[in-house]
Amino acid sequence: MTSMLSVSIPTVDNVNRQAIAPLQVPERLLLGPGPSNADPAVIAAMNHQPIGHLDPAYLKMMDEVQVLLRYAWQTSNPMTLAVAGTGSAAMEATLANAVEPGDKVLIGVNGYFGDRLVEMAGRYRAEVCTLHKPWGEVFSLSELRSAMTAQHPKILALVQAETSTGARQPLEGVGDLCREFDCLLLLDTVTSLGGVPIFLDEWGVDLAYSCSQKGLSCAPGISPFTMSPRAVEKLRLRPDKVPNWYLDMTLLAKYWGSDRTYHHTAPVNLTFALREALRLLAAEGLEARWQRHQQTAEKLWAGLADLGLTCHVEAAYRLPTLTTVRVPKGVDAKTLMRQLLTEYNIEVGGGLGELAGQVWRIGLMGYNSQPENVDTLLSALKKVLLS
Amino acid sequence: MTSMLSVSIPTVDNVNRQAIAPLQVPERLLLGPGPSNADPAVIAAMNHQPIGHLDPAYLKMMDEVQVLLRYAWQTSNPMTLAVAGTGSAAMEATLANAVEPGDKVLIGVNGYFGDRLVEMAGRYRAEVCTLHKPWGEVFSLSELRSAMTAQHPKILALVQAETSTGARQPLEGVGDLCREFDCLLLLDTVTSLGGVPIFLDEWGVDLAYSCSQKGLSCAPGISPFTMSPRAVEKLRLRPDKVPNWYLDMTLLAKYWGSDRTYHHTAPVNLTFALREALRLLAAEGLEARWQRHQQTAEKLWAGLADLGLTCHVEAAYRLPTLTTVRVPKGVDAKTLMRQLLTEYNIEVGGGLGELAGQVWRIGLMGYNSQPENVDTLLSALKKVLLS
Repeated sequence: MTSMLSVSIPTVDNVNRQAIAPLQVPERLLLGPGPSNADPAVIAAMNHQPIGHLDPAYLKMMDEVQVLLRYAWQTSNPMTLAVAGTGSAAMEATLANAVEPGDKVLIGVNGYFGDRLVEMAGRYRAEVCTLHKPWGEVFSLSELRSAMTAQHPKILALVQAETSTGARQPLEGVGDLCREFDCLLLLDTVTSLGGVPIFLDEWGVDLAYSCSQKGLSCAPGISPFTMSPRAVEKLRLRPDKVPNWYLDMTLLAKYWGSDRTYHHTAPVNLTFALREALRLLAAEGLEARWQRHQQTAEKLWAGLADLGLTCHVEAAYRLPTLTTVRVPKGVDAKTLMRQLLTEYNIEVGGGLGELAGQVWRIGLMGYNSQPENVDTLLSALKKVLLS
Repeated sequence: MTSMLSVSIPTVDNVNRQAIAPLQVPERLLLGPGPSNADPAVIAAMNHQPIGHLDPAYLKMMDEVQVLLRYAWQTSNPMTLAVAGTGSAAMEATLANAVEPGDKVLIGVNGYFGDRLVEMAGRYRAEVCTLHKPWGEVFSLSELRSAMTAQHPKILALVQAETSTGARQPLEGVGDLCREFDCLLLLDTVTSLGGVPIFLDEWGVDLAYSCSQKGLSCAPGISPFTMSPRAVEKLRLRPDKVPNWYLDMTLLAKYWGSDRTYHHTAPVNLTFALREALRLLAAEGLEARWQRHQQTAEKLWAGLADLGLTCHVEAAYRLPTLTTVRVPKGVDAKTLMRQLLTEYNIEVGGGLGELAGQVWRIGLMGYNSQPENVDTLLSALKKVLLS
């Protein structure tokens, strides 16, 4: 057979035709801020050929993911789905859809991800105002009330689980406060979903996002997103188009809803993985899952104290999923992390932003929230600190 | 150990605690517009635990992905990377970074994805003007010159491989034309990369995007993106921030570049997969790969003619990766597709937009571009058409 191809094309340049070795992935115990190790059943679920994103078998999986995300978040929001991107994409999706140019958005900043919300909201032409606390502290209801009274924002954005500090923001009463001011409540649950109690509807949360690779024990790249009927109504009434096509929920709703209108080619293998992760979550049950995370974290905290190490966050507001430990005087934070990684194949995280060099971040999330992992880490930490 | 968890939290609502069965994925031969079946070695590459997105082993893989994408696209653009989302995200990334509010963008619309470019560019406040052709046809250089002369746009956007029509847009001379008008050239290569000759630098393309799940034989969810130094310079000079945080190349460049500044948690398992897919592409070589796609497609076209079926696109402009076949009179397009799927586990695509109900779309891409698959499809098609 003669091909039309052989004529009139330029010569291929082979300068970048690098011959690389077959993939070799080191085995790490991922005890940093994420990704965490996935449940082995989740990895196995990815290990299939893709199917079409409009295949009836795939559409059924999408429905299952939606139902189980509602369970995980304790919400009845119809608009609950998985964004085809990492947690930051789902974060941006909340702002892209809810913020109209000129909307005042009040953001509680007590860590790196509060700052990221500020940075993102500005791109959607929000009038951003902020409420600050030192990194590692949380906002009281009365502090939030004062700020709301002063600012009257359209959206209040808080981080439930600050991945940069390990602090857990209490949410009781915040939803009522927002309703009093006719304001939407936006919540970052990236480091809480699947590991820390969340009651979105009970708390009156209108917009929330998370990730797959922490409390849900899944691989990264697909991210939970939800919005309440109140938030959907704001979206429905906005006069302009959402200024982000990929994350436009008016379009995504038609693909995840009964229309099944093509929007993008879904990351089907990650959907297999997320479905499996959520199946395991439902099988374990939220109460048991949260209890497991709390107990594993308390074991870590006790062990760190035994080593003479200090947690950065006050016990009452400490996340069970992510612990920040103060770097002792005379120890170089990065050197220890490198030693843990190269000598013990254990990854822990360093401090971000204000806390760079001052803390390590230890994650015990999802599948990795097991007492054996605490023992492994403490033992390695002890050896490295004494070496 | 007593946990702090047991007190004062609401009761968990189990209404959405659905007990679902362990994952079962039907085995399909994916001969539609994508996803295509991945190379089995690519699926195996995903089958590892994640590692951290700042792990030295991971950073090395990122470098390899960049080099091999440059080979695949035949470009030396330093700013060549993989976006953590599907092809539509990479598409949006080109516009988000290159379009400043008020910029005139000329878009060639001869299919569904031209319309999508129009829709996206508007969200970035471009002044959009369009050049139209019937779906299935392509633009001549003189038609492009007339439009450029009339419009003087800052960006000309074309679709090299229209997934909705199966037409291949010739690019020879278009880059020179754009330089003459001091205009950037933006190119959709979603259904061409890894299957159809592409010479980005030779053709003077400034912005391009693709997907993983077609010619590259990878799973969907991670997407090639590249921009030329000319496009980077426009980005550097823009006075405003890119109005899309997740896809902002000024930030992504710091993560993919030598700074390694944290931006998002990368979809590490998909990076494993993409690296493997690109490794296999480099091992096969572009010339052999393109030849294989062309020969497989020609076998399909001959077989379709034997069945009395007609291709929608003129032979000279037919994509080897995706063929549109006219639905014969008296045949219901959807019924046949359902039969192929349920009785033969073969997926082909239906027509989109203007071509809905009028054509089927048959993809022979990447790993699936094999003569055996043509035989399998033609045999099933014959039986179904005669039934």
